Amino acid sequence: MSVLLISRFDPDEWVRALVAHLPGVHLRVYPDVGDPAAIEVALVHRPQPGLLRTFPNLKAVVGLFAGVDAMVNDPDLPDVPFSRMVDPLLTRDVAHYIVLHTLRHYREQPLLEASQRDGRWAPRPPPPAATVGIMGMGEIGGLAARMLLDLGFSVRGWSRTPKSIPGVESFAGRDRLPAFLGGTHLLAMALPLTAATAGILNRATLAALPPGATVINAGRGGHVVDADLLTALDRGHIAHATLDVFSPEPPPADHPFWRHPKVTITPHTAGDPRPESVAALAADNVRRALAGKPLLYPVDRARGY
Amino acid sequence: MSVLLISRFDPDEWVRALVAHLPGVHLRVYPDVGDPAAIEVALVHRPQPGLLRTFPNLKAVVGLFAGVDAMVNDPDLPDVPFSRMVDPLLTRDVAHYIVLHTLRHYREQPLLEASQRDGRWAPRPPPPAATVGIMGMGEIGGLAARMLLDLGFSVRGWSRTPKSIPGVESFAGRDRLPAFLGGTHLLAMALPLTAATAGILNRATLAALPPGATVINAGRGGHVVDADLLTALDRGHIAHATLDVFSPEPPPADHPFWRHPKVTITPHTAGDPRPESVAALAADNVRRALAGKPLLYPVDRARGY
Repeated sequence: MSVLLISRFDPDEWVRALVAHLPGVHLRVYPDVGDPAAIEVALVHRPQPGLLRTFPNLKAVVGLFAGVDAMVNDPDLPDVPFSRMVDPLLTRDVAHYIVLHTLRHYREQPLLEASQRDGRWAPRPPPPAATVGIMGMGEIGGLAARMLLDLGFSVRGWSRTPKSIPGVESFAGRDRLPAFLGGTHLLAMALPLTAATAGILNRATLAALPPGATVINAGRGGHVVDADLLTALDRGHIAHATLDVFSPEPPPADHPFWRHPKVTITPHTAGDPRPESVAALAADNVRRALAGKPLLYPVDRARGY
Repeated sequence: MSVLLISRFDPDEWVRALVAHLPGVHLRVYPDVGDPAAIEVALVHRPQPGLLRTFPNLKAVVGLFAGVDAMVNDPDLPDVPFSRMVDPLLTRDVAHYIVLHTLRHYREQPLLEASQRDGRWAPRPPPPAATVGIMGMGEIGGLAARMLLDLGFSVRGWSRTPKSIPGVESFAGRDRLPAFLGGTHLLAMALPLTAATAGILNRATLAALPPGATVINAGRGGHVVDADLLTALDRGHIAHATLDVFSPEPPPADHPFWRHPKVTITPHTAGDPRPESVAALAADNVRRALAGKPLLYPVDRARGY
């Protein structure tokens, strides 16, 4: 019986890291599958849709990443236990991304960079006090909220269910979304993509933000209605958007985001799994799967994450 | 008798803020000096050299800013008590600047922005763990160190005398500078400019940093030997430099910093005094000066700050 690694990363680095944590386990690396009936556990990072259906004796799927929306929405995903990855280092990386780009917007760094390109020395007055609003208050959003609170920002969070983080104002449910947005100057999105959150940043919600607000998307491209965001940027209602995720990804070469002066694109690098950190956690779940024990960080398919 | 405000900022905003904190005090705004002999206290932000010498009955000079090097080095500065400003909001602004640009370098954001300009989707692997080194561990450097520690960075500080901040490795004195620099991947400068620190970032100290290190200067332009920094950038030893301060300021239009792909220029905006915050502290020192009491945050002219 075998464990199969399916990864779009450099497999060598992953294999080295995993083998060290899985003595005695036969690890195969896709596409070198061997006998499909021998695959008991799949360790996956963005697997091809339908692929997992081809292993008839699969006991479990262990995700190496946090955002499992594409897999949950794959109608061919086998009905076996399925886990996502909650890696403290990846969580910290995404929280760093949110802190970096919140400060970058707060301090108008994109304008200063444009001034430098034009050879202009153009000081700006110190920015007024601002409230950061975080949509999605799970591991990532919660850590970003605590970091921004430590930096002296006023911080509020919006989530499906109320969250209690000392010093962070909690808003929960669709009814409270306009109130949350109305007091948010710097918006950061760290939501899972589900049927309930697809297209959540649209004409109505963008209009609910105060004029001059900024947007950071570290969630999924499917959260944003691109055309609505572009209109809000062009009208000046939104001052700047920094986007790490897109739908489709990467955005096509002729997508207006690429050359828009008020859009910063990063290539889905807010948080990528680090083999040396993820391997130990993934190996733990592989051992649990092989022993028939419940997985850590199980995905609730109905909820979508 | 009068108090004279000498500021390069919009004086209206300052006057409004100061008057509210100084009932009964006659506030004049330069150049409307009236009788120079009537000026008892000068409230100053980057005053013209020699100007303060023209007030024969001056009792004290209250600085509205933190970096007093230009004034200390003015041979015409009258020999009266002289204070600088230690404003918690300005301190926080400069610490934010250091956190923003440390994260910007750590996450290779300048490279990602260059990729966007070229229309390239070019993900980078997650960065390895890194140590931030802060030169100058006063109010600003100390706060930045604590913030970066909270973000999960390894942090070390270098200063004239040893400092004790839990979790931050302290290096003190010139002898320890090479050891400090040798383990610093992300260098941030928050030093006062004195005879002992002028030109401190030069060929030898840049060479002591590990290859690929980055530099942030939130201190003074006079700390950096520009030609040595440009050589280190062009050789690839230093990956990027973000500079808020220059000598002279702004740098001349033909200075290589303006168009260098590895240099980010910000227009001396890491920390500017905010009238609503500074006015109360400045008014306190004005009242102390008028009453003949010692000033808060006195400048030690021999030490230079």
